[in-house]
Amino acid sequence: MSLGNVKVLLFDTFGTVADWRGSIARMGERAAREKGVEGVDWDAFARAWRAGYRPGMARVISGERPWTSVDVIHRERLEEILPEFGMDGVFSEAEKTDMNLFWHRLDPWPDSVPGLLRLKQKFLIGPLSNGSLILLSAMAKRAGIPWDFVFSSDTFKAFKRDPAVYLGAIALLGLEPGEVMMTAAHNDDLEAARSHGMRTAYINRPYEYGPDQTKDFQADEDWDVITDTITGVADAIGA
Amino acid sequence: MSLGNVKVLLFDTFGTVADWRGSIARMGERAAREKGVEGVDWDAFARAWRAGYRPGMARVISGERPWTSVDVIHRERLEEILPEFGMDGVFSEAEKTDMNLFWHRLDPWPDSVPGLLRLKQKFLIGPLSNGSLILLSAMAKRAGIPWDFVFSSDTFKAFKRDPAVYLGAIALLGLEPGEVMMTAAHNDDLEAARSHGMRTAYINRPYEYGPDQTKDFQADEDWDVITDTITGVADAIGA
Repeated sequence: MSLGNVKVLLFDTFGTVADWRGSIARMGERAAREKGVEGVDWDAFARAWRAGYRPGMARVISGERPWTSVDVIHRERLEEILPEFGMDGVFSEAEKTDMNLFWHRLDPWPDSVPGLLRLKQKFLIGPLSNGSLILLSAMAKRAGIPWDFVFSSDTFKAFKRDPAVYLGAIALLGLEPGEVMMTAAHNDDLEAARSHGMRTAYINRPYEYGPDQTKDFQADEDWDVITDTITGVADAIGA
Repeated sequence: MSLGNVKVLLFDTFGTVADWRGSIARMGERAAREKGVEGVDWDAFARAWRAGYRPGMARVISGERPWTSVDVIHRERLEEILPEFGMDGVFSEAEKTDMNLFWHRLDPWPDSVPGLLRLKQKFLIGPLSNGSLILLSAMAKRAGIPWDFVFSSDTFKAFKRDPAVYLGAIALLGLEPGEVMMTAAHNDDLEAARSHGMRTAYINRPYEYGPDQTKDFQADEDWDVITDTITGVADAIGA
């Protein structure tokens, strides 16, 4: 299958470009040290925080709740888990507001920025993420992620795997579906992208969820590109 | 009026960041030389091409026509003016398709990239333009315009000065209107932005339209910043 007509590469962000688990754990540890809080498993905290994400989105996807940004979903989940981890009342409102911005300051995987800088020479690149616009823009700015544009869930008022996200991105780009490649560490994201005619690149990130990881240890289908890193995507498509 | 809480700067693009008239004229002259076409006033051609823009948008704004990207409006106008300038049948379909991409390859004014690089250190920056997403992304990539994100008319399926564009941008950013500053060389763009609570910066670009310029030779209101360049905006707001 020729990939010669691909013009734009879209990227899932959480897990594919950014290491949310390691980043949140590190920032939590730092915040705890400053407050003199000890004994919290911040890796577990990061995973618990993230675990509120899909149920939070699900209520929006089902229509039970009107459009809600992930920033709001993150904040609500934070309020739930602080007591679960024995930190009820430890952090002030202002500190919790700042903690919620941990998600705006995620670190990329080591291969992400080098790979994206290469891909940017040849293609337009942007995220197609469930993050909010300001989250994705702020994260990119801090980490030097060189997006050409930013597509967020609130661009489309929908979350992946809703077809509105993929079809909306293709329409905004003004391209044919086969001119756009979706890159993700999640097989179901690529399955949705392929169902709409997009090209697909799978990046294996078997450490994304740590002990909670139950899937995406390998490519489940014959994606157009299958690799372990974003630099590997650049290698595969000649960038 | 304190500008200390401004977090994001949005920019009109055609005329404010990019010199469309000079750019189109230069690219037209080059294309003509390659075809052996002589005697065309390419500055007038650029202005005539641009003159189809507002009427083209007006039909969409009025609802007479469904949502139409500026790339389509540009192409339709190109077909109208080629015969008017004595070039009926001179260019092939492929060449006209490429000419339409002149608008994706506009050069910035000399102060634009230096000013934006300074502003990017302190603020999130992005266009709020009637251009299409791929036009704005391609232009930025070619010219080194360092946007953090791209808002286009097709993000909102509306053209400025429709309130949906300004209100849509504020909502996507998840900020208060007063945390967002609109920067433009056009008083009416700033008037609309201010009416929605945004901060305003006026850049005087008295050569934008050349002999066709009839307005925007000066600030018509007490905009928050009034200057001649994007570096002047950076000076004014401490970036």
